[in-house]
Amino acid sequence: MVTITRREHFNAAHRLFRPDFSDEKNLQVFGKCSNPNWHGHNYILYVTVRGEVDPHTGFVVNLKSLSQLIREKVIDKLDHKNINLEVDFMSGRLASTENLAMAIWEELEEGIRQLGGLLHSIRVEETENNSVEYFGP
Amino acid sequence: MVTITRREHFNAAHRLFRPDFSDEKNLQVFGKCSNPNWHGHNYILYVTVRGEVDPHTGFVVNLKSLSQLIREKVIDKLDHKNINLEVDFMSGRLASTENLAMAIWEELEEGIRQLGGLLHSIRVEETENNSVEYFGP
Amino acid sequence: MVTITRREHFNAAHRLFRPDFSDEKNLQVFGKCSNPNWHGHNYILYVTVRGEVDPHTGFVVNLKSLSQLIREKVIDKLDHKNINLEVDFMSGRLASTENLAMAIWEELEEGIRQLGGLLHSIRVEETENNSVEYFGP
Amino acid sequence: MVTITRREHFNAAHRLFRPDFSDEKNLQVFGKCSNPNWHGHNYILYVTVRGEVDPHTGFVVNLKSLSQLIREKVIDKLDHKNINLEVDFMSGRLASTENLAMAIWEELEEGIRQLGGLLHSIRVEETENNSVEYFGP
Amino acid sequence: MVTITRREHFNAAHRLFRPDFSDEKNLQVFGKCSNPNWHGHNYILYVTVRGEVDPHTGFVVNLKSLSQLIREKVIDKLDHKNINLEVDFMSGRLASTENLAMAIWEELEEGIRQLGGLLHSIRVEETENNSVEYFGP
Amino acid sequence: MVTITRREHFNAAHRLFRPDFSDEKNLQVFGKCSNPNWHGHNYILYVTVRGEVDPHTGFVVNLKSLSQLIREKVIDKLDHKNINLEVDFMSGRLASTENLAMAIWEELEEGIRQLGGLLHSIRVEETENNSVEYFGP
Repeated sequence: MVTITRREHFNAAHRLFRPDFSDEKNLQVFGKCSNPNWHGHNYILYVTVRGEVDPHTGFVVNLKSLSQLIREKVIDKLDHKNINLEVDFMSGRLASTENLAMAIWEELEEGIRQLGGLLHSIRVEETENNSVEYFGP
Repeated sequence: MVTITRREHFNAAHRLFRPDFSDEKNLQVFGKCSNPNWHGHNYILYVTVRGEVDPHTGFVVNLKSLSQLIREKVIDKLDHKNINLEVDFMSGRLASTENLAMAIWEELEEGIRQLGGLLHSIRVEETENNSVEYFGP
Repeated sequence: MVTITRREHFNAAHRLFRPDFSDEKNLQVFGKCSNPNWHGHNYILYVTVRGEVDPHTGFVVNLKSLSQLIREKVIDKLDHKNINLEVDFMSGRLASTENLAMAIWEELEEGIRQLGGLLHSIRVEETENNSVEYFGP
Repeated sequence: MVTITRREHFNAAHRLFRPDFSDEKNLQVFGKCSNPNWHGHNYILYVTVRGEVDPHTGFVVNLKSLSQLIREKVIDKLDHKNINLEVDFMSGRLASTENLAMAIWEELEEGIRQLGGLLHSIRVEETENNSVEYFGP
Repeated sequence: MVTITRREHFNAAHRLFRPDFSDEKNLQVFGKCSNPNWHGHNYILYVTVRGEVDPHTGFVVNLKSLSQLIREKVIDKLDHKNINLEVDFMSGRLASTENLAMAIWEELEEGIRQLGGLLHSIRVEETENNSVEYFGP
Repeated sequence: MVTITRREHFNAAHRLFRPDFSDEKNLQVFGKCSNPNWHGHNYILYVTVRGEVDPHTGFVVNLKSLSQLIREKVIDKLDHKNINLEVDFMSGRLASTENLAMAIWEELEEGIRQLGGLLHSIRVEETENNSVEYFGP
């Protein structure tokens, strides 16, 4: 098996909370991440694709095409945005890193198939100490 | 001259805008950083202190005391906060990295003098590509 | 599958040697790592946990609870310590990175299960060039 | 399962192109990577080996021996070289990161077996944004 | 004094040699960096600008404008190029990191003045172990 | 002014304490760094040299010669050693990062002058959060 990984970035605001919880309950469960005035991160996204190496190009998939796809489907929607308020594919979901990784998978899976590869995993680093990796449903 | 540098982190939301500008003007001057719904960063703060090496301890200043001072005066006020709305020492100031570095200087200068050192510079990294360093008034 | 990873640090002294070897034999097998006067490292620890995403929190496990568990069971015992002399769970084991990763697994597995996740792997970076990952017995 | 990973570096020139393509076709498929005057990278190589932990040494394999093997078989042939023109094990292959990872696997697999381990994966980082990992045939 | 620093990248091939030296002499002075078939690096460029903070924007200079200037004047000419053969501002100069930093200074100084700042230093990292910083003539 | 910087590493054990202090007093002043059983770090050393660029080589000083000098005078004495017990140039000095940087300056200053440069600064990173820079007496 061969995998290629493309790294991208986005800087966004978010808040962890449930509208059906009181402020006290949100603070208890989500800690300072529940701050009603938001906080934010420099998120790092790693998209890993597996597949056969095309003997004509030496590529699993063309990295320039992969980067464009990630930019259109994911980065342009998240970068310098509020994840809770402005990102269509996160609408109605808790803005946790786990949910973010799973939603980004859904955004990219079909497009990567059209590029000739299979989405292998989505890794999202929220901080240098905290990250999530999703390997698909 | 000897300097010591302590690195700390804070994750915060902010927005670059002027209330006396229209949304269009803010967008033109500040770009996507003016998003009214906020965005955020994992800020990295470097506090550099200069001084003589104390022959009894081998230290310019005690790093544990320096770290506590930075935490009380700066990190606890900025971490998981909205810089525009919730940080007393940024009240009434544009939330640019330049202004943030200058305000952090004011917060720390006197306390560092009491620890026996002189504040040499404040460096704030907003992203791995963009940073500011302030060397005092 | 979803995994979350928490990064932690500890700074410790150690020595690679077998008491049943002569100093020459230890030097031959373990090189400069066998120095009887010790040496040390800034170790980086990555704890990866897998599980289902809890729909009420959006979390695999609560990262604050995970970090506290790692701190109590592992970091407080290793940080600023001598791995050969002072760490109960390394007693009687060669202080190699492989053995360290396997011992940390044993320290954490049950506690992570009580947090609602399954320990997936323990990665220990001894230097930026040398690391070990353990996936369980 | 236990794995150990050794990181090494090499700085090399290369070019992505097919001799049976015109310059225009090469530019279209490979973009600026097809520049006939070459370009280059600081490649980072991660070699991951799996195996049992030897109870006499606490090692999967001896890292000093592994590093020497990688240096002889791979780094000395690639470092400060032109991958297209000077590297015997890349002769006749497109100089993509995928092909490089697969060729390095072939160079190392047998030697690692002689050290007592099994080659698990070869990861090559061409830039901090682009990397490939190969898990064997 | 306040400084802001913008980080940019370029991947390029080069060779250290003097045309008036024999191959043996070049090898003796420049080592493996004199390889006639070229080698290459992922260069990292840090451009530091000093100035007053504009009270209307909170900026020393607008980072988007600075990044565009660096891209046009420097990155577009160096990225995926051969420094010895293709870069107009390095023509006739030894392709050392020192000379590269000094030439980049000349390319940027006037443009940065037009943005309202003063060029403070150019730092070029050739590898993570080797870097040069130039503070002007 | 032009400066070049060479990065090197050493892994060492140390302890912060004064023999004329009781264990309690040492613990109070130096915290967990006073552990009598030692602890250790992956130290990173940055040696910065300034000078004129030699028009025949394009170099301030030859980096290969600089690296050899640092290795002989500093790294070979510190790497995989106990700083308090085994390092001649630290004998009788508190093993703080400040004192280490100042002692390394003394070890290197004359040799760098013989290479044709002037030692500009010594930076020692003890951890990614704590570092010291010394600019000379």
